[in-house]
Amino acid sequence: MLRHTSLLDGSRRENDAEHCWHLSLMAVVLMEHAAGEIDIRRVLTMLLIHDIVEIDTGDALLYDETDATARAACERQAAERIFGMLPPDQAHALRALWNEFEARESADAKFARALDRLQPLLQNHRNEGGTWRQFGITAEQVLARKNIIADGSPVLCDLAMRLIEDSVRRGYLAASPTESTP
Amino acid sequence: MLRHTSLLDGSRRENDAEHCWHLSLMAVVLMEHAAGEIDIRRVLTMLLIHDIVEIDTGDALLYDETDATARAACERQAAERIFGMLPPDQAHALRALWNEFEARESADAKFARALDRLQPLLQNHRNEGGTWRQFGITAEQVLARKNIIADGSPVLCDLAMRLIEDSVRRGYLAASPTESTP
Repeated sequence: MLRHTSLLDGSRRENDAEHCWHLSLMAVVLMEHAAGEIDIRRVLTMLLIHDIVEIDTGDALLYDETDATARAACERQAAERIFGMLPPDQAHALRALWNEFEARESADAKFARALDRLQPLLQNHRNEGGTWRQFGITAEQVLARKNIIADGSPVLCDLAMRLIEDSVRRGYLAASPTESTP
Repeated sequence: MLRHTSLLDGSRRENDAEHCWHLSLMAVVLMEHAAGEIDIRRVLTMLLIHDIVEIDTGDALLYDETDATARAACERQAAERIFGMLPPDQAHALRALWNEFEARESADAKFARALDRLQPLLQNHRNEGGTWRQFGITAEQVLARKNIIADGSPVLCDLAMRLIEDSVRRGYLAASPTESTP
């Protein structure tokens, strides 16, 4: 499935397989910055499967809040179908990890979710605005969601803040809605 | 980097990021079939990084034996450059895992390499011959390399044998060179 964000080189939209590989590699090299004590085996498994429901549902834009409940129901149904293709013990174990990622309560899930939130920032910063520009997203909206990065990794949240500030300074990201619609 | 093999749906050539994600997911669901006792954390890390040198070297066709020594030297140089971008402790650890994968001596490396060898068989079988047809590869040549799968997983080697036999039966794979050049 294609995602809305583009590859770091801006050449085309990224797909879920590429996104999951990139996040997994980020987890390997950034794990020392996790907020809590993590089990990298569980973090990697979560990251490898976290978007697999998009085979059935497609990619949702982070800032699109219409019908979040309907979407969550579709995703649960997709998880049921896709993990259900495995033998019951594996279906259960992977489904539980997928639920854990969604719930974002464990240290493993918090770190995995932080990486998943940080990566599009890296891409949009490198691509001079990317989906921020494309969909008229403001720094306010991006900042309102930075707590997910902070919960998983304060160090990576510092990086995210620097990327956001630099993006505003360079004009890749509008500070507020008035600026984005002059 | 694009690989020679195509995606399972045959729509286009697969790239290294997609290949690594696919192999990692295969490792998660197939680990019970590993020949030896494995540490899935190490297997996953190996699989995530095993083709990263192709950023510098590109994809080599498995059956192209010209200049294997020159290629190995290029890959070592690429590993030096790419892993060398990390802090020394991480560079050392990941480079050691990459070497371990290449050496194929540990149980972790044997299982990782078995998956890496099995995956193109799945793709070529699904794509009615794929790179076998494209490059005139014969069952003899494929069978000569099945020991890599057998060493990592006898169960998966049985699957590989069934795929090869079925591919010959269906005409996706020539049994011998004479058949491929009638």
